[in-house]
Amino acid sequence: MNHKSINFNDKLDRFEKHWSPRVIAEMNDYQFKLVKIRGEFVWHSHTETDEVFIVLNGVMKIAFRDGVVHLKEGEMYVVPRGVEHKPMAEDECRVLLIEPRGIVNTGEAGGELTARNDVWV
Amino acid sequence: MNHKSINFNDKLDRFEKHWSPRVIAEMNDYQFKLVKIRGEFVWHSHTETDEVFIVLNGVMKIAFRDGVVHLKEGEMYVVPRGVEHKPMAEDECRVLLIEPRGIVNTGEAGGELTARNDVWV
Repeated sequence: MNHKSINFNDKLDRFEKHWSPRVIAEMNDYQFKLVKIRGEFVWHSHTETDEVFIVLNGVMKIAFRDGVVHLKEGEMYVVPRGVEHKPMAEDECRVLLIEPRGIVNTGEAGGELTARNDVWV
Repeated sequence: MNHKSINFNDKLDRFEKHWSPRVIAEMNDYQFKLVKIRGEFVWHSHTETDEVFIVLNGVMKIAFRDGVVHLKEGEMYVVPRGVEHKPMAEDECRVLLIEPRGIVNTGEAGGELTARNDVWV
């Protein structure tokens, strides 16, 4: 058995690309992904699952059709399944995402910000 | 819809008891729980699920029958299902646990450290 902890900063140092989640761990059929974000993402939703955002460093917003959530380091939010949302950050923000294996970052929306899925770091 | 973030420190300020996980959020059928630990827990396992530990503040160890994992702030570890483990911390350590709804903290072991399940904060 592997008795080594997973260090978020060590993993974050290994990639630069924004909006490109990297898998760092799995729990049952769920994945833990690190992502660096800056700017505005696309409006999208995930019809099959809730999605968790935990901010590790920086600040971000998640826009909804009826409001906005502000998140800073040490805060989390659960985006309910099927709810349209648009993550954004003025400066680079580092985030831990938790969602089932196989979820695509742009959900139903697609487009050029769609990242390759299941890339580990 | 609730557009408020969940702040780990705000939630941690609301309880003191060690080894007594408090639920702060749900994602599908999984729960996010905060727990303050100090001292040695009991050897136990969860036959039905993996279990995630994320250290928010302090340092802890997870002993296994064949080794030990050291965890500090900004680090996580996935305890595989069915593997006996024993969390411990010399000084108070604050941890985010992630596991399916309904999991009891002492798993198969039971005993006096068994906490009431599904207590929210």
